[in-house]
Amino acid sequence: MDGVKVSPQKIISNPKGDIMHALKSGDSGFAGFGEAYFSIVNVNEIKGWKKHNLMTLNILVPVGEIEFVIYNGYDFFNIKLSKKNYNRLTIEPKLWVAFKGLANFNMLINLASHQHDPNEAENLPLDDINYNW
Amino acid sequence: MDGVKVSPQKIISNPKGDIMHALKSGDSGFAGFGEAYFSIVNVNEIKGWKKHNLMTLNILVPVGEIEFVIYNGYDFFNIKLSKKNYNRLTIEPKLWVAFKGLANFNMLINLASHQHDPNEAENLPLDDINYNW
Repeated sequence: MDGVKVSPQKIISNPKGDIMHALKSGDSGFAGFGEAYFSIVNVNEIKGWKKHNLMTLNILVPVGEIEFVIYNGYDFFNIKLSKKNYNRLTIEPKLWVAFKGLANFNMLINLASHQHDPNEAENLPLDDINYNW
Repeated sequence: MDGVKVSPQKIISNPKGDIMHALKSGDSGFAGFGEAYFSIVNVNEIKGWKKHNLMTLNILVPVGEIEFVIYNGYDFFNIKLSKKNYNRLTIEPKLWVAFKGLANFNMLINLASHQHDPNEAENLPLDDINYNW
């Protein structure tokens, strides 16, 4: 889907505990650094829909498994991220996003291009965009 | 300790799953964005010692509990970070750092000012700096 990019990230195995790459400033998909925050989504809960008008999202799921659905007004894009399917998901502005927790504990980080600003984002109730979760 | 800063971060409670702040570009302690990576440290394992010559580290522990020890050549600084003691730990360059996993699963993120470069960092065996773990 235009405005969505999936970039495999390296996991460096270490007997003391792995290193998992997330984002470098030179990477394709990097759109500046405004803010980083974690979001937990409990099992079977869905957060969304939200559309950002300025913010590019760079999302990783280091713990658990989260299903992301992106809607551009016509089509849906769907991906499940986890340590086993370890990719960075870049989502450009103007796309609707929702996500669902699939494991017992699920956490994402968003390395966002802009700081959180409620005036920059729009929200819709989950039922307003019909997707078969 | 000079070059070390501990900044409380907000956790926004949400029945679907909490939001945990990490770093904003305007925050005290922000020194530019070079790279973000996760590091897991297994229970009772210690990673370190490492000293960066250019990189400022901004570290958060969203899952588990990790004890950090920082050594400036004279004194030790010690802190345990977790979701319960949720702070951002900023470590400026030229300080020795090691950290130990305390819970069953422990993960940090480093929101680093520079990209990883083996020529920018020095390593010492754990026993070379005598700390009573």
